[in-house]
Amino acid sequence: MAEFDFIRWLRQRTPSDARVQVGPGDDAAVLASINAPLIVTTDMLMDGVDFLLAEVDPVRVGRKAMGVNLSDLAAMGAKPLAAVASVALPRSADSSLAEQLHLGMTEMATKYDCPLVGGDTNSWDKPLVISVTAFGTPGPQGAILRSGAKPGDWLFVTGSLGGSILGRHLDVKPRVREALELQRHVQLHAMIDISDGLAADVHHLVEESGCGVVLEADAIAIHADAHRMNEGRSPLEHALGDGEDFELAFAVSPEDGELLLTHQPLAACPVTCIGTFVAERGLWIQQHGQRRPLPPMGWVHLLGENEP
Amino acid sequence: MAEFDFIRWLRQRTPSDARVQVGPGDDAAVLASINAPLIVTTDMLMDGVDFLLAEVDPVRVGRKAMGVNLSDLAAMGAKPLAAVASVALPRSADSSLAEQLHLGMTEMATKYDCPLVGGDTNSWDKPLVISVTAFGTPGPQGAILRSGAKPGDWLFVTGSLGGSILGRHLDVKPRVREALELQRHVQLHAMIDISDGLAADVHHLVEESGCGVVLEADAIAIHADAHRMNEGRSPLEHALGDGEDFELAFAVSPEDGELLLTHQPLAACPVTCIGTFVAERGLWIQQHGQRRPLPPMGWVHLLGENEP
Repeated sequence: MAEFDFIRWLRQRTPSDARVQVGPGDDAAVLASINAPLIVTTDMLMDGVDFLLAEVDPVRVGRKAMGVNLSDLAAMGAKPLAAVASVALPRSADSSLAEQLHLGMTEMATKYDCPLVGGDTNSWDKPLVISVTAFGTPGPQGAILRSGAKPGDWLFVTGSLGGSILGRHLDVKPRVREALELQRHVQLHAMIDISDGLAADVHHLVEESGCGVVLEADAIAIHADAHRMNEGRSPLEHALGDGEDFELAFAVSPEDGELLLTHQPLAACPVTCIGTFVAERGLWIQQHGQRRPLPPMGWVHLLGENEP
Repeated sequence: MAEFDFIRWLRQRTPSDARVQVGPGDDAAVLASINAPLIVTTDMLMDGVDFLLAEVDPVRVGRKAMGVNLSDLAAMGAKPLAAVASVALPRSADSSLAEQLHLGMTEMATKYDCPLVGGDTNSWDKPLVISVTAFGTPGPQGAILRSGAKPGDWLFVTGSLGGSILGRHLDVKPRVREALELQRHVQLHAMIDISDGLAADVHHLVEESGCGVVLEADAIAIHADAHRMNEGRSPLEHALGDGEDFELAFAVSPEDGELLLTHQPLAACPVTCIGTFVAERGLWIQQHGQRRPLPPMGWVHLLGENEP
């Protein structure tokens, strides 16, 4: 009956919210009518792949599980509404694992106004798996898709990229507020969050938009962590190829691009123009006047270094 | 890039649906505005716990993953709207595993009008995990909770119970249509689906409703499979203690109970009255004029047989 003690604990910790008619403890949760489209995303994390439970505080794992889903909502320009989570807990784990995961998830849920309204708790003899499904409603410009970039548009990113493996990949800062704020200043033609890596995710953008993009190597905002990485690849390669930055990449018209560069409307988060969309389908990188094709996996594979 | 081939395959197989504005392939799915409360449920299944991948057709696993979630929607009396799924695929598995799971899920999705609109595909060196989140809208009586049973109400179940491990636990027949049909004939005071076992789930009903129930042992509808089980427990014990019947247990007034018994409104699915709600909190079973407390785990634990 430990599951029911846990559900009781969950219920006590679930604050009342006008959007939530029925929270944890019934066969399903019930959310109040929203009268708007519903944006839905789901992401599953596994021990040994997305985190190492033996080495990290489970609270951070909970944060990441919620954070990666919030980042997908941000990529749609959405306002969070609610989330549910399911977990497969290893039987060998400390009995407080479920609580610690929950603490991490609800910390993020509170911060981004995305109440955790239900879930499914299981246990087995294998490593931890945690799956979150998050819902949101569209921002002022409706759902921002990957498919709206046009030749001539400018490509921007929030923040800086590379080396997230040094810790930021666990401490996801989903750009939910930034994506909503951007919509108050410029028209977002297309957007994606950088989870697979800049090159891979920009590749998704142009694939869906039916066009191409030329990245300016010297313009790419490189994170200090990418400089701290020390295993043969350059900081630029890390910025292009590493995943889990959870920054946003987005397309705007040149006029809106100028406006962003002049006004930098996101208080604590600079936006940088790193490329231009072109009619020809594909992905290129330009440096010292030279333009070369850039494979979706990033720089490394172009140079044929480091990896098979 | 196999993930993207898979997404391409998914998109080709995703029929257009007026309720789905954006299906698989973006950062999130987008559902058209429904202007009704949203009912949300999530369930995770793991290889070795909920199924044995080595012994079953993965199509059946896909069906079960979708079916158990649809059963939770049925338990709320809801009409399915859409679902998302995330999977952790074992790297050792046949490369067609993802497709076969998808075939099973979409077969159920089509049958119960619950389009699969998105998901997350991962792989790792551990056993298969599959997590589905399903959404629905309330039936004509709104969301039917566990908490509405009143002393004097009659307890009904759909179908018959026990021995689902012989195969029915994989071939879930969620009582979605039955739950909606019942709402056209009687007022459902409380409802739950039988996933943990009749005794356990009726225990949840009375806990939430703040009352008790007396089951009539001789009235309990026992499945032929419960008679085919042959490891020391009686068919009644199987009906009380086995899980994953995915039938519905629900509370109605005696007047509505009489109506159900007279008219049997569910064409191919008999409903049976198996007990009466009482004011005193608890769970009892009555047989040959004797009333005994029934532990939530079922008969076996009452008798102290078979299990530690």
